[in-house]
Amino acid sequence: MAEAALDAVRRELREFPAAARELSVPLAVPYLDEPPSPLHFYRDWVCPNRPCIIRNALQHWPALHKWSLSYLRATVGSTEVSVAVTPDGYADAVQGDRFVMPAERRLPLSCVLDVMEGRAQHPGVLYVQKQCSNLPTELPQLLPDLEPHVPWASEALGKMPDAVNFWLGEASAVTSLHKDHYENLYCVISGEKHFLLHPPSDRPFIPYELYIPATYQLTEEGSFKVVDEEAMEKVPWIPLDPLAPDLARYPSYSQAQALRCTVQAGEMLYLPALWFHHVQQSHGCIAVNFWYDMEYDLKYSYFQLLDSLTKASGLN
Amino acid sequence: MAEAALDAVRRELREFPAAARELSVPLAVPYLDEPPSPLHFYRDWVCPNRPCIIRNALQHWPALHKWSLSYLRATVGSTEVSVAVTPDGYADAVQGDRFVMPAERRLPLSCVLDVMEGRAQHPGVLYVQKQCSNLPTELPQLLPDLEPHVPWASEALGKMPDAVNFWLGEASAVTSLHKDHYENLYCVISGEKHFLLHPPSDRPFIPYELYIPATYQLTEEGSFKVVDEEAMEKVPWIPLDPLAPDLARYPSYSQAQALRCTVQAGEMLYLPALWFHHVQQSHGCIAVNFWYDMEYDLKYSYFQLLDSLTKASGLN
Repeated sequence: MAEAALDAVRRELREFPAAARELSVPLAVPYLDEPPSPLHFYRDWVCPNRPCIIRNALQHWPALHKWSLSYLRATVGSTEVSVAVTPDGYADAVQGDRFVMPAERRLPLSCVLDVMEGRAQHPGVLYVQKQCSNLPTELPQLLPDLEPHVPWASEALGKMPDAVNFWLGEASAVTSLHKDHYENLYCVISGEKHFLLHPPSDRPFIPYELYIPATYQLTEEGSFKVVDEEAMEKVPWIPLDPLAPDLARYPSYSQAQALRCTVQAGEMLYLPALWFHHVQQSHGCIAVNFWYDMEYDLKYSYFQLLDSLTKASGLN
Repeated sequence: MAEAALDAVRRELREFPAAARELSVPLAVPYLDEPPSPLHFYRDWVCPNRPCIIRNALQHWPALHKWSLSYLRATVGSTEVSVAVTPDGYADAVQGDRFVMPAERRLPLSCVLDVMEGRAQHPGVLYVQKQCSNLPTELPQLLPDLEPHVPWASEALGKMPDAVNFWLGEASAVTSLHKDHYENLYCVISGEKHFLLHPPSDRPFIPYELYIPATYQLTEEGSFKVVDEEAMEKVPWIPLDPLAPDLARYPSYSQAQALRCTVQAGEMLYLPALWFHHVQQSHGCIAVNFWYDMEYDLKYSYFQLLDSLTKASGLN
């Protein structure tokens, strides 16, 4: 009796991603040729939680024409920034039985640029990616080169961004599959970013496990050691690499269907809240993203339910 | 093993309504003092699926000042309209083991007004409530007295209404608890309507059963008989009367929390898609509602999942 009911519950949960996808997820991320009006943005993209790539949204930013590695060197080369350093390019990712966070170093941006341009060596992989509004806090000299927010998005969402982040990294710097509780407008200024996306409705096929949190430490000899964060609670994270999924271990992921897109310089990706994303980039890619806090409303409650039921039913 | 997992699933489903309510359902239906802008309407009410009562949205409609039973008699008294006739005021409701639809009679509106004003008798309870856009199709003479749609809502939703319905009924005419796949703008012109509401997230506590469909037939002697609709499939309907719930039979309904509101003449209720509603009215209440087709998007998929899981887990 209980077994039949549990089977029926699991079947509904496994059939949900395809049903949701059919109604509300496009086969490829659509392009808009210009920024939408605030109402259209909210109604056609934010409310239905659909990604899109917006063209011609940044062409009035001086950054789009000015920013290059040499411009950054001339303008903010001597400014110290937080840099994530990892042995393999994976910051915030599962390694064995640990969730390992990057070593953080404060370096003049010129040092990062030296590595990026092959003029110097540094152990591991560097990624300027501090997600604490590092653009206004660490690189305020760059602010005149862009708008402090995205006006049509701020009007649509009825709020200003919580954070404006600056990203600069090597080709081997990878952001592992995860989700954020932010509406994300991701603007590529130079180079390109490669996104692999899953809608929140794919949750039943996406494995989570609990990991002991740890941090890389860079030794004086330039090697890395993993140091446990003993004061921190275990961290739920996705162990799966969507580029090379271990389907023997996580067979249900074979039923999830990733959307892939490349965001070119001058384009802006609207990455809706709670979408799972895995990100790679071209070498020396420069990007800025705006994080707007999501609405904790019915859609959020439904996602929480999907998440709880995926766990409670033993699916993932 | 299966039992523990099923218990956990049921617990999550039972805890969901309170969690969703806490984030997104107000304790009482809020009032707006004027119509919202299209963006505000979409962002603050439609997208989060929250009801509100809008004041000062109809004051420019001649109907609000002109419509009364005597005005209707003078203007459209001789016009035939579809009238739902039931022995007890319940059209489309569960009676025993049947889902019973009303007898439908075509009557000049003056006959309905005669009954409404106590000048004549008619067996059973009368309700002009044909939800097929009966205002433009049956009473087009009344159209100049109001706008053909709600401009700020049409702009917000990006579409015109699918139906504009005219309602006129006796105090004992009741609409049983149900939901519609429409965004509903319900405008009271004269009298008042009493709504009892449940958000879609209350689904785990709301019982559904399958009933044999049937229709009342009015005999020549003025009595009613129930005639099965043999060609029709069984109809899922809510057997529960929220005004006098049979908690011995449907104990989980005690955990659902109804919102009640009264919509006065001149007020407009935004009743979001998929909200369960039970409706009563003052005698001779005149109302018009606009049905805009809902978006079949992620929120809809999530509701379908909640509905399926409520059934699959054996909750309701």
